[in-house]
Amino acid sequence: MVILGIDPGYATVGFGVISQQGNKCKAIDYGIISTPKTDSLPTRLAKISQCIDELMEKYKPDAIAIEELFFQKNQKTAISVAEARGAILLTVHKKNKNLYEYTPLQIKQAMTGYGRAEKCQIQHMVTLLLGLSKIPKPDDAADALAVALTHAQSGRFAELSRV
Amino acid sequence: MVILGIDPGYATVGFGVISQQGNKCKAIDYGIISTPKTDSLPTRLAKISQCIDELMEKYKPDAIAIEELFFQKNQKTAISVAEARGAILLTVHKKNKNLYEYTPLQIKQAMTGYGRAEKCQIQHMVTLLLGLSKIPKPDDAADALAVALTHAQSGRFAELSRV
Repeated sequence: MVILGIDPGYATVGFGVISQQGNKCKAIDYGIISTPKTDSLPTRLAKISQCIDELMEKYKPDAIAIEELFFQKNQKTAISVAEARGAILLTVHKKNKNLYEYTPLQIKQAMTGYGRAEKCQIQHMVTLLLGLSKIPKPDDAADALAVALTHAQSGRFAELSRV
Repeated sequence: MVILGIDPGYATVGFGVISQQGNKCKAIDYGIISTPKTDSLPTRLAKISQCIDELMEKYKPDAIAIEELFFQKNQKTAISVAEARGAILLTVHKKNKNLYEYTPLQIKQAMTGYGRAEKCQIQHMVTLLLGLSKIPKPDDAADALAVALTHAQSGRFAELSRV
């Protein structure tokens, strides 16, 4: 099974593509989609949408897992990230209905068994579970791989969290 | 000039189509797009996107004006509306680059000359400016007509607010 994990944003979107066979997971690709702040928001959303489309075309994932937003202190940033997330949900849904959402809490628990785990602990587990030689960079890519791994690990609960 | 005004939301999206000739504006169509709360968010976004696509196809607007979000007390609602707004911005941008955004303050000022105007005052002005016999219903449709009228009235500043 191929899973595409997405860490939503408007300036930077993290993505991680993994393959799962039994209990083993391997990283196929990971990275970020960046949009220049000189572009308008609609232009940035269009670029993100196009890149997500290309990733789905290239890797033909069986499932797409996307991080849910938690309420941030910086409301202006939260609004912009939510706008990007809406554009991403629409883009994915048009091509693939196997779309799953996970909260930051679910991701932390799936990765470390502890809902208040630090970022470095999650990155360590991502590295370990995917058998990588070093922590995947940048952070948004590692976050996206964590979402994909969360879906891989919670496969048996998949139908419950399916959106 | 034909202007499509949009009042974004995820449960209800208001739309208003007006034509402007010189100083006169007329309502061509207005109403709402509703999505059932039993549907998942991606499904609701897809429905909204399809309806916006159909409106653009039908009326071929020269410009699309969409209301910006202000920070609400209910952050969960604000996040969902922002997600819908992102999906709408993406949908519009793919078909038409003449996309403009107006804040609630700009709309109130354009409609009544007063930034703290009440909803009923704006609805009264929408009715008057479009020469309608009664206030357009539901409220979201009237709000969308107000956004379209704001764009019509601020035509000479259009390039400044263009996104």
